Amino acid sequence: MIVVLKPKISKKDEVAVLKEIRKLGYKPHVMRGVERTVIGAIGDERTHSTLETLTAWPQVEKVMPVQKRYKLVSREAHKANSRIKVGKDTVIGGEEIVIMAGPCSVESEQQLLTTAEAVRKAGAKMLRGGAFKPRTSPYEFQGLGEKGLKLLAKARKQTGLAIITELLSQDHAELVAEYTDVIQIGARNAQNFQLLIAAAKTGKPVLLKRGLSMRIEEWLLAGEYILANDNPNLLFCERGIRTFETYTRNTLDLSTVPIIKQESHCPIVIDPSQGCGRADLVLSMCKGAVALGADALLIEVHPNPAEAWSDGAQQVTLEMFARLMDELRPFAEAAGRRMPS
Amino acid sequence: MIVVLKPKISKKDEVAVLKEIRKLGYKPHVMRGVERTVIGAIGDERTHSTLETLTAWPQVEKVMPVQKRYKLVSREAHKANSRIKVGKDTVIGGEEIVIMAGPCSVESEQQLLTTAEAVRKAGAKMLRGGAFKPRTSPYEFQGLGEKGLKLLAKARKQTGLAIITELLSQDHAELVAEYTDVIQIGARNAQNFQLLIAAAKTGKPVLLKRGLSMRIEEWLLAGEYILANDNPNLLFCERGIRTFETYTRNTLDLSTVPIIKQESHCPIVIDPSQGCGRADLVLSMCKGAVALGADALLIEVHPNPAEAWSDGAQQVTLEMFARLMDELRPFAEAAGRRMPS
Amino acid sequence: MIVVLKPKISKKDEVAVLKEIRKLGYKPHVMRGVERTVIGAIGDERTHSTLETLTAWPQVEKVMPVQKRYKLVSREAHKANSRIKVGKDTVIGGEEIVIMAGPCSVESEQQLLTTAEAVRKAGAKMLRGGAFKPRTSPYEFQGLGEKGLKLLAKARKQTGLAIITELLSQDHAELVAEYTDVIQIGARNAQNFQLLIAAAKTGKPVLLKRGLSMRIEEWLLAGEYILANDNPNLLFCERGIRTFETYTRNTLDLSTVPIIKQESHCPIVIDPSQGCGRADLVLSMCKGAVALGADALLIEVHPNPAEAWSDGAQQVTLEMFARLMDELRPFAEAAGRRMPS
Amino acid sequence: MIVVLKPKISKKDEVAVLKEIRKLGYKPHVMRGVERTVIGAIGDERTHSTLETLTAWPQVEKVMPVQKRYKLVSREAHKANSRIKVGKDTVIGGEEIVIMAGPCSVESEQQLLTTAEAVRKAGAKMLRGGAFKPRTSPYEFQGLGEKGLKLLAKARKQTGLAIITELLSQDHAELVAEYTDVIQIGARNAQNFQLLIAAAKTGKPVLLKRGLSMRIEEWLLAGEYILANDNPNLLFCERGIRTFETYTRNTLDLSTVPIIKQESHCPIVIDPSQGCGRADLVLSMCKGAVALGADALLIEVHPNPAEAWSDGAQQVTLEMFARLMDELRPFAEAAGRRMPS
Repeated sequence: MIVVLKPKISKKDEVAVLKEIRKLGYKPHVMRGVERTVIGAIGDERTHSTLETLTAWPQVEKVMPVQKRYKLVSREAHKANSRIKVGKDTVIGGEEIVIMAGPCSVESEQQLLTTAEAVRKAGAKMLRGGAFKPRTSPYEFQGLGEKGLKLLAKARKQTGLAIITELLSQDHAELVAEYTDVIQIGARNAQNFQLLIAAAKTGKPVLLKRGLSMRIEEWLLAGEYILANDNPNLLFCERGIRTFETYTRNTLDLSTVPIIKQESHCPIVIDPSQGCGRADLVLSMCKGAVALGADALLIEVHPNPAEAWSDGAQQVTLEMFARLMDELRPFAEAAGRRMPS
Repeated sequence: MIVVLKPKISKKDEVAVLKEIRKLGYKPHVMRGVERTVIGAIGDERTHSTLETLTAWPQVEKVMPVQKRYKLVSREAHKANSRIKVGKDTVIGGEEIVIMAGPCSVESEQQLLTTAEAVRKAGAKMLRGGAFKPRTSPYEFQGLGEKGLKLLAKARKQTGLAIITELLSQDHAELVAEYTDVIQIGARNAQNFQLLIAAAKTGKPVLLKRGLSMRIEEWLLAGEYILANDNPNLLFCERGIRTFETYTRNTLDLSTVPIIKQESHCPIVIDPSQGCGRADLVLSMCKGAVALGADALLIEVHPNPAEAWSDGAQQVTLEMFARLMDELRPFAEAAGRRMPS
Repeated sequence: MIVVLKPKISKKDEVAVLKEIRKLGYKPHVMRGVERTVIGAIGDERTHSTLETLTAWPQVEKVMPVQKRYKLVSREAHKANSRIKVGKDTVIGGEEIVIMAGPCSVESEQQLLTTAEAVRKAGAKMLRGGAFKPRTSPYEFQGLGEKGLKLLAKARKQTGLAIITELLSQDHAELVAEYTDVIQIGARNAQNFQLLIAAAKTGKPVLLKRGLSMRIEEWLLAGEYILANDNPNLLFCERGIRTFETYTRNTLDLSTVPIIKQESHCPIVIDPSQGCGRADLVLSMCKGAVALGADALLIEVHPNPAEAWSDGAQQVTLEMFARLMDELRPFAEAAGRRMPS
Repeated sequence: MIVVLKPKISKKDEVAVLKEIRKLGYKPHVMRGVERTVIGAIGDERTHSTLETLTAWPQVEKVMPVQKRYKLVSREAHKANSRIKVGKDTVIGGEEIVIMAGPCSVESEQQLLTTAEAVRKAGAKMLRGGAFKPRTSPYEFQGLGEKGLKLLAKARKQTGLAIITELLSQDHAELVAEYTDVIQIGARNAQNFQLLIAAAKTGKPVLLKRGLSMRIEEWLLAGEYILANDNPNLLFCERGIRTFETYTRNTLDLSTVPIIKQESHCPIVIDPSQGCGRADLVLSMCKGAVALGADALLIEVHPNPAEAWSDGAQQVTLEMFARLMDELRPFAEAAGRRMPS
C-alpha cells in the first residue's frame, strides 16, 4: 500500500499514521518528496487488514493499493490458457471457437427443438435457453422453470448439444445442475456472491456474465469466488456494459477479450445479443469478437423473433444464424482458430 | 404502444405489421405523417404481449411504450404518502425524519453496544449493522453471520433501537427476519428478484437500495416485486450510482428524493455514506437530503473508523455523528419536518 | 510519482527503469515488497516530465501520481474563500446567495424585459440569457447574436441587474465582454482551452460549467487555465453530468458543492435547470443546493416556457420563480447564509 | 411528434394541448387508449418548432419525437458509401483500408521524419501528428504550433504521405488548412460548433472524433454541421467513450462501425490508441475494427514512447507498428477489403 500524507502536517500526526500502519501488520517506509510525504507500507495486502480505512484520517490524502487483489483467476497464478471441458467432447479455450446458440427463453417443445436442430446443423456445439428468467417487471414472463429444464434435456438427448442455462436462485442449484452442462450466472447476479458459491459447489462449469456496471477488477474478483470454492471451470462472458448511449441496449466492450486474456487464464465468451440488444448488429459484433480472439460466442436465436416471449429485438432468425456461421469462418482462420466443421 | 415504420416501405409490409399488432391483442390506429407512418397500438401494455419485439422486423424503425410499467408502487395507485411502521413506535414517512445509524459491519459486542448507545443518545431511532456482508473479494471479511444478528438483538434490547440489517441469501430470510425490524436489500442484489420475493414474504418492511446502474424505472419495478408479493411496507434507498467520477466512490443522486415522491407513495431514504464513500462529505450530503425532503437517513457510524473491518473511509465517528444530528435540525425545520428530540 | 514494477522482473529491467527515472529529473527510492518492487520517484511532478509514459514499458505495472495537478485554484494556494465582485455591488462567495435568472435564449425585447423585471422584483441580482446558443442540430435556433447582447444591455440599464451570457467563439470574446458582466463557458466548451484563454484575457469574471463527462480534477484543471491567464475571477458551475439515467436530462451532482469548497477557494454555482432538464424538479434541487452551501444559483425562467425557442421543458414560469425565492429563504438561513431581501 | 397526456386530465386541459399543437404548426390526431390519451402531431419536426417544450405543461406526461433529426449525413439521403479523396491518390471509404499513423505530438524533425519514413514503409498512407495540442492542464506541453505544421509539410514532401492534424482554434483554420490534407476535430471539441463550421469552410476533409460522452445521434448531428456548411468530405472517428471502467483510459465502442455504416454514408475511422490508452491493446483492437468493417485506422506511433512528450502509454513503437500491419492483412481479406501493399 502507498499512503500519501497531506502537505504540512505535524510530526505527531505523521507518527500516528506510522504507528497505525505497524499495528495493522505492515512495515512502513517513509519517502519525503517535494511537497508531500509518502509512506510505502510493505506487507501482503491480501492477508493483512487493508489500510484504505486510513483515508478516514484527516492527515491522510489518499491510500493506493499496489497488489492485485485476485489470485487464482490471474495469469500470474496459471500461465497456460485453461481449457474447460463441457459435455462429452466440447472444449472451450482450445483451437475451435465454440458456439452456444438458442432462444432467450425456452417457450415450448417445438420452439426449442426446431431451434436446437437448426443451430446444431449450422455448427453450434451448445444450446442456450432460459428456464428461469430474471425480468425487470414482475408482470413479465418468468420462464417455464423445471419444465423448461426438462425440455432442454430432451433437446440435448435428441441433438447431442451440450446445455447452458441460467441459475437464478441458490435453492435451484442442485436442480439446475442436474439438467445443465454449464451454469450461467446472469449480469444482474454477477455480484450475488451466495449464488456464485452455490453454483461453484455444484462442480459444473460456470459462465459468469459481467455485471452492467462492473469494473474488470470486480469481475475478476467475482470469478475468484468460483475458483476459491474449488471449482476451476470458469468462463468469463462479456455482455455489454451500461453507458449513456441509448442507440444500443448496452455497450459491448470488446476490449475485454485481450484484457481477460492478459489478466487471466480463463476463457472469454462474447454475448453480442445482450451486448447490443439489436439483431442487426449481432453478425458484425461476432466478427469483431472472433478477430479479437474470443473463445466462444453466446448467441440468441429464435425461429420467430417477433413473437418471442422475451427480448425479441435481439434474437436472430435460424436463417441469419446459418449465414452468420458461414461468414465467421474466414475471421476465425485469420485469428488462427477454427469454426466447427 | 407507438410503432414507427421506416420511410417508403411497401403496402404489404405495412399490412403485415398491422396484422401482427392485432394478433398480439392490440387495436392499431394508423397516422400518416410527413415522412413516416406511425401506428398507435391501443391496449393495456401490461396485460398483452409487448410489441417491442416488432423492432426485429425490417420495416419497423422503433417501438415506444406509452404506459408506465409499474402499478402498485405508483403515486397514481395510492395518492397519499405511505407511512411505514417499524418496531414499536417508529414511523417512516411521517413528520419526523428517521435516522438509522450504526457501523458498516457488526464486529464485536463492545463496538456495537458503544455505537448503539451513542447514536440513540444523539437521536437515532434505528440501529444499522451488517451481519452478512457482500464483499467484492472472497478474501475480505464476510460478516459475523448469526452471531452478528444476536448482537444486534442484544443492542435492541439494551437501547430500544429498532434494527435494520442486510439480507444476502434467500436461505437466510427466515433467520434474518427473526432478528431484524427492517430487511435491507443491498445495491448488488437490487435485481436479485428471488431475494426480493423471499424478503417480501417475511412480512417485514423492506428497504431496497438502488442498484449501481439502475434507472429510476427499473428501481420502481424492483420495488413492484415487493408490493406484488403482498408486502406493502417498502422503503426506497438511494445510495449513489456508478459514474465516470472517481473523486467520490459513487455519485449520490439527490434528485431521487423529489422523483420518488412524484412517482411513488413509498418513503425515500438517503444513504450518504455509501453514496460518497467519504466521511468528510457525509454531513453536507445529509443537509441536502433533508432539505430535499428525504424521509430517513442511513448513516454509517463507527467508534474508530480507521480500524473498521470494512469501509472505514466512509464511516463517521461518534462525535461527528452527534454534531451532524445537531446541525441537521434547522434544515429539517426549514423543510417542514422535525428531527427526533 | 509511484512506479510499480511487475513481479519477477530481471535486475537489468529494474535498472533500466531507475535510469530513466533519473534521466527524467526524479530521484528514485526503491522499496521491495512481498510480491512487487515499488519505486518512489521524488521530484516536482508539475515541473518535470511526467513518468506516466513508463507504463508503456513491459516491466512496469502501473504509475501513480502523488501530487495534485492544480495549483492556483487549489485551497492550498489560497486558504480564504474568494469573493468575486460582479457589476456595481454584487459579490459572489459572500454571505448572500446570489441568484442569476432569466430565459435560456434571448428571444425578443418583450420576453427579456418582462422576465428581467419579474426576476429582479423577486430578488435576482443577475440576468442570464443566451445570445449565442450552442445547439445540437444545425437546424435549431442559434441565438440572436449581437442583437441579443444589445437587448441584455438594455435590460441591465432598465433593471440594474448584472448580466451573464455565454461565449461560444474566441472571435466574439471582445464583443461579448463589452456587453456582459460575467462570461459563461458552457458545458460543451469546458475543455475548449482556446476559448477559456480568450475568456480569461477579457478580464471579466468567468463562470465555468462542468463538462458533461468531466471529472472533478479535470474541471479544476480547466479552471486553472483561467487563473494561469491572470484572471482571478473564476466561478465553478455544476450543471449535471451525463449518466445512464434517462428520467432526468442529466444527473445533477450536488456533492460538487462540498468538494469544490474543500479543493478550491473559488465560488460554486449550481444550475438546476440544465441539471435536471425538468422545471418540476428545479425548486427541490435549489433547496438542496442552498442547504449544501452553494454560493449562487443559475435558474432558467421564461414568461411562457411552452413557447420558448429552446429548452422549454426546463424553464420555470415567473410565478414559479417568485415562489421558489420565497421557499428558499428558510434553507438559506439554516445554512447561515441569506437570500436577497 | 407523439404527445402522451397524463391519465384523467380534464377536457379543458386536453383542448389546450390540441390548440397549442395547431399553433406550433402541427396537425393533431387523437388516440384514446386504455389509460392515457395519446396525440400524434403530424408535421415536419425539422421545420416546425419542436413540441418538446410541451413537457413543461402539467397535463403532459411525455413528448416523443418520431423523425430522425439528421438529414445530410444520413444513409436515407445518400444510399451509396461516400468516398473521400485525400491528397493525390488516397481514397477513404473504398476497398483499401487506409492507415493514418504517427506520433501523438510533433516533437522534432528527427522524431517526425523517422516515424514518417517507418510508417510509410510499413504501408501507412497518411501521417498523423499534433501541432496544436489540447491538454488537460495548462502546465503540460501545448504543441509546437506552426513550427509543427512546417515539420509535417516537410515530412509530406519527403515521404509522399498525406497529413492529418488537429485544429484547436477557429483562428488557426486558414493556417492549418494551408498545411494539412485532413483537418482533425478532437473529442473535446466535438460539439464546439463554431470550430466545426470554421473547419468545414476551409474545404478540406474533416475527421470528426466522437466526444467523450456523445450519443450516436449527437455525433451524427455534429457531422451534419459539416455537410450543412457545404463540405461533403466528412469522416467519423470513434476514439472511445468515457465509462465507469478504469482499466482502460476509455471504452472503445466498436459497435459504432456497423451503426455508422447503417445510419450514414460517411466513412468510419477507428482510433484504438485514444480508445484504450494502452499500447498493448492497440493491435487487438485494430483486428476487431478491421473485421467489423472500419474504413481507416488512426494509430499513434512513436520511435521511443517512454520519452514521448504526451500520451506515451498509448503509442506503439515502430517495430510494433510494422508487425501490426502484417498481422492485420488476413483480417482485411476476411472482411473483403485489402491492406495497402
